[in-house]
This record gives sequence, C-alpha cells and structure tokens, in this order.
Amino acid sequence: MPKLWNDSIATHRHAVREAILDATAALVAERGLTGITMAEVAHRAGVGRATLYKYFADVDSTLAAWHQRQVAGHLQQLSEIWERTHRIDDVLEAYAFICHEHPPTEAAQSLHRSEQVSHAREHLISFVAERLGEVRVDVPPKELATYCVHALQAAGAVPSKAAVRRLVMVTLDGLRSEPRG
Amino acid sequence: MPKLWNDSIATHRHAVREAILDATAALVAERGLTGITMAEVAHRAGVGRATLYKYFADVDSTLAAWHQRQVAGHLQQLSEIWERTHRIDDVLEAYAFICHEHPPTEAAQSLHRSEQVSHAREHLISFVAERLGEVRVDVPPKELATYCVHALQAAGAVPSKAAVRRLVMVTLDGLRSEPRG
Repeated sequence: MPKLWNDSIATHRHAVREAILDATAALVAERGLTGITMAEVAHRAGVGRATLYKYFADVDSTLAAWHQRQVAGHLQQLSEIWERTHRIDDVLEAYAFICHEHPPTEAAQSLHRSEQVSHAREHLISFVAERLGEVRVDVPPKELATYCVHALQAAGAVPSKAAVRRLVMVTLDGLRSEPRG
Repeated sequence: MPKLWNDSIATHRHAVREAILDATAALVAERGLTGITMAEVAHRAGVGRATLYKYFADVDSTLAAWHQRQVAGHLQQLSEIWERTHRIDDVLEAYAFICHEHPPTEAAQSLHRSEQVSHAREHLISFVAERLGEVRVDVPPKELATYCVHALQAAGAVPSKAAVRRLVMVTLDGLRSEPRG
C-alpha cells in the first residue's frame, strides 16, 4: 500500500481510539469507575461494539488505557509549566492540585496497580529531581524528589484549596531547610 | 450454656483464627501474596479445610484479615512507642521504618483498598495530630499530620536505612519550619 494510505489508516485508528477514551472519560466523570459497560462506551463513542472490541478486549483494559492517557496528560501539563516558568515550586504546586482534584478512590487504586503508572511516578520523581535547583545539600536530589511527590499526594486527603497551598508550603520548607548541626 | 463454657468456646475460636492468620503470614513471607491456596493455609495452620472455611470464605478474605491484623499491630507498636517515650519524632521514625520494611507491592495495594485499612490510616493521622507537640502554628495539626504520614510513606521507595533517616529529618524539618513572612 502507498505510504499516504498507511498514514491515513494510522490517523484514523488514532482518532477512533481517542474518541473511545473520551467517551470513557465522560462516563467515568458521570458515574465513577464501576458499572461501565462496553456497550455504553461504544454508544457514547459513536462506534459499533465490534469496532470497540478491535481496540480493547474489555472494560478493564479500556479504563486502564483511559487512566494511562490521563496520567500522561498530567505529566505533560507539569512539563509545560516547567518550560514556561522554570520554577520547580510552580511544578510542585500544580502537582499538588492535580492530586487534590483526582484523589485516589478505591477503584482508581486498582488502576494504579498497572506497571505503566508506577513507571509514570518514577518518571515524575526523576523529572523533579533533575530540576530541584537550590535546595538543602545534605540529602540526595532523588530522595528529596521522592519526599516531595509523596508528601504532595497528601493533597488528595485535605479539605480545601487553602489547605493544599499550606501543604505545598510545608513540603517546600522541608525541601529547603538548613542542614542541621 | 454456662458462661465458662461460652468463654472457652470464644477462646478456642480466637486461638484457631490466630493460627490461621499466622499460617497465612508465614506463606506470604515465603512466597508473596499471590498463588496461596486454602488447602495450604489449612495444612500450615494444622486445621482441616472444613474448619478453615468456617472462619474464612476464600483466600482473599483470609489475606484481608491477615493484613488487617498486621496494620492493627503496627498501630499498636506506634502507640507503645508513644507511651514509652512521649516523643512524636520516635513515633514518626518508627512509622517510616514500617513503611520501608513493608513497601506497597501491587498485590498489597489491592488489600489496601479495604475500608478497614483506610480507616486505619485515618486513625494514624488523628493519633499523630493529637500528639504533635511544638510545631509550626501556621498550619492546622490535622493537615500537618496528613503531610507527615504521606511524606513518610516515601520510605517504601528509598533504598537504605540511612535514606529513611534522611527522609524523617526532611519531613520533621517541614513540620517545624518557622512560619514565613
């Protein structure tokens, strides 16, 4: 087949996949992660069920793909903030608000088990470690980044945006304290 | 039935349950959380399979009960440390080492989904919040405790005991920083 034709098929497949994941996102937003069926996803995406099954074997893998796209989107968002301001504080605050807006639910934790997602967390820790800038010198950057990412996940468990900002402040204070002794 | 007889039955039931959970713990320690069968648990506990099924419906609920007992044991441990030293730093360091020695695996995360366990985390946060002592005054104790518990969970992702101690130091520095401005 000519290259143009192949490109066009790839573009089409990508568009259908995105439509399926958009439909999944809409259903999750409306009703949470449980009780979604393949028939509903197909209907909402405007594709036949047979087509849907060419892309995903079942609801769980559809949800996993949606979740992976979402996590990748968050990383992209943080990366753009860095490119814009080159201030790690801005990146960490944005991460805290992402955690606040997407607190781990029981069902989400089962999605978090996927290897891709723990890979994404590793990626985020490395991303932060490489961009820490002026911080305390008595602790390796990788450990400080691990501390930040975990501490900021507490944003999923605090009640308000003001509380998220206080959490960011406390976390950054730990990051920048003077070495003791 | 006379009270003595009822007591004796309750004691017996408790002993059998503990033996089942000890057997489960031993199997988990040897082989991890997956692939354990009810037959193995019964054999290791020295009870018949029929007896085992009087206590637990399946492997998942056996594992959940074992995990709940373990989490309760950790809380008890922290509570004893507090009673002994009345220093929250000791409690938080002990918690970090518990996280380091029991890092969340994929399978453990599915156990963590149980409501009892998120209840246990809530309990730990309240426990810490009530015992913080002299800390920064610009953030409510409950939020500071939420920060501590999440930050210290990073201990499950750092490579050495020295790194755990550094993590505790950084976390406590955040907890005790001077309010800004």
